[in-house]
Amino acid sequence: MKGTTLYGPRDVRFEDRPEPKIIEPTDAILRIAATCVCGSDLWPYRGIDAPKEPVPMGHEYCGIVEEVGSEVKHVKPGQFVVGSFFASDNTCPICQDGYQSRCVDARPMGNEGAQAPYLRVPLADGTLVATPEMPSNDLVPSLLAASDVLGTGWFAADAAAVAPGKTVVVVGDGAVGLLGVLSTKQMGAERIIVMSRHADRQKLALEFGATDIVTERGDEGVARIKDMTDGLGAHSVIEAVGTQESMMQSIRSTRPGGHIGFVGVSHGVELPGRELFFAEVHLLGGPAPVRRYLPNLIDLIWNEQINPGKVFDLTLPLDQVAEGYRAMDERRAIKTLLMP
Amino acid sequence: MKGTTLYGPRDVRFEDRPEPKIIEPTDAILRIAATCVCGSDLWPYRGIDAPKEPVPMGHEYCGIVEEVGSEVKHVKPGQFVVGSFFASDNTCPICQDGYQSRCVDARPMGNEGAQAPYLRVPLADGTLVATPEMPSNDLVPSLLAASDVLGTGWFAADAAAVAPGKTVVVVGDGAVGLLGVLSTKQMGAERIIVMSRHADRQKLALEFGATDIVTERGDEGVARIKDMTDGLGAHSVIEAVGTQESMMQSIRSTRPGGHIGFVGVSHGVELPGRELFFAEVHLLGGPAPVRRYLPNLIDLIWNEQINPGKVFDLTLPLDQVAEGYRAMDERRAIKTLLMP
Repeated sequence: MKGTTLYGPRDVRFEDRPEPKIIEPTDAILRIAATCVCGSDLWPYRGIDAPKEPVPMGHEYCGIVEEVGSEVKHVKPGQFVVGSFFASDNTCPICQDGYQSRCVDARPMGNEGAQAPYLRVPLADGTLVATPEMPSNDLVPSLLAASDVLGTGWFAADAAAVAPGKTVVVVGDGAVGLLGVLSTKQMGAERIIVMSRHADRQKLALEFGATDIVTERGDEGVARIKDMTDGLGAHSVIEAVGTQESMMQSIRSTRPGGHIGFVGVSHGVELPGRELFFAEVHLLGGPAPVRRYLPNLIDLIWNEQINPGKVFDLTLPLDQVAEGYRAMDERRAIKTLLMP
Repeated sequence: MKGTTLYGPRDVRFEDRPEPKIIEPTDAILRIAATCVCGSDLWPYRGIDAPKEPVPMGHEYCGIVEEVGSEVKHVKPGQFVVGSFFASDNTCPICQDGYQSRCVDARPMGNEGAQAPYLRVPLADGTLVATPEMPSNDLVPSLLAASDVLGTGWFAADAAAVAPGKTVVVVGDGAVGLLGVLSTKQMGAERIIVMSRHADRQKLALEFGATDIVTERGDEGVARIKDMTDGLGAHSVIEAVGTQESMMQSIRSTRPGGHIGFVGVSHGVELPGRELFFAEVHLLGGPAPVRRYLPNLIDLIWNEQINPGKVFDLTLPLDQVAEGYRAMDERRAIKTLLMP
């Protein structure tokens, strides 16, 4: 088969590689129904944390189970399944606490390379969640979103303790930030302020439930948030970028006692201890434990209560994956859906 | 009257200054029953963040109300009261959320200088909590402890989400760390591991409920904690030092999904964003909102369920305050009680 490989900065190729096989008895092989390009794929694509040798790309996936290993008990060939971007056993104490992305046996799915027609999923019983039946085509983008970008936005909102009556700020208008808005709306927040400068993203944010748009950034952005919250700051802030500026903007936009959920993969961030001490905010972030939320998210999608698939504003055949990266890199697309 | 003033590194003087008066109609004047030296007083005493001009010292206090301003409604002359090291109105949205040390009108009591026979307390109705009756002398040290060091240890345990069945690590064996142990025990933790190298402090930690002592620090200390927790790390960690080493030791000793309560005033701390991201721990710290806990803490002390006053292992007349600082600086005392 052909799969996606990153060779170096802005050098993505769709090229021959062996079809994945069952290696461990807990593996499953999926035929991918849809995959996509993640905002975090753009970091190495742009040469930041670039790999030293060519690496397979892609960690978001849903599809049909082709084959399972001898120890797989719950996942069956023919099922349509969604999995997280980290495989996990879902039985260790960390998984049982709901932090499956930090499972004692966690396996990053990026190593397998989901931007391909077939995918090996380790720890299949712990990782994959089946849909009630075979989904209609129009549900597939949303089910794919649950695999990472929706699950990450949902975790950010949960980590930020979003709840009815609260004022929430979302820093970052990428796909994760936008689905943070959708998640925040689902959790009943009263006011949802999105910090965004892009008209197309503002539009989708409003559609997902944002009540206010703030275009200022940095200190000016913080001042605007303070103005809008009686000088106090927001109850909850979702950080969905991962830079020093966005982290400090998040901390400074949160009221004392408030909560920050940070899910932008940190790049060059150093948090000043003294300021964090006197900010007195709750901080929780990291790779989202998507597996914890998958049953609920699949249910919401299946019942058409949410439509997170709207973040995909470009759909391409999988063999045009390189153009999918380019479109996101150049901000011509929020997120690229890839169809094998 | 005479009061305590810091002139420069290791230069504490007990010298004449005007007796405090009612300035604002929301003030109260207390006759101090007992005061003490805080671990945080040692930072400027040692020349770190040293004041540029002589400053009054002391922010821990309990005593009898002498006089109240015209707008004080709940606090009455003759009552025995305990207050927090931050005065707060206890009515603003931040106070109502339980973060009184970050009240929109918070006033650091250090500015008033509690190491003195009389003290002005701003925002008296919001700040002071009266005991049921006049306490016996043997309760006074514990009531004084509630003003800061116990309240801070309690907040740290609360911020670290200490609960029955959990394994808790306490980093720092100063008075706050030791009362973090006491608080953790009260909250029903199963296992309480104290990181300490001082025999006298280890003894008190065990008396307060510690189940294990770890003498290693840094990476070795972290390795010991991992060994003791099936490789996972603790559920809850109390950080009660405020240095880079103690913060990193705390983060690395916590399991993914676990909680850190950090109350050591940060000095030179920079938290690496990437490590914090992948640690996936809850982080909350800052100046303890002691006012939130005071009613409960006074109740526990009044009913002799806890005896936090044991952290005072040196009692001096107030006019020997300079020796009180020296004894703590030289680690001859855990904490010095000062009697006017």
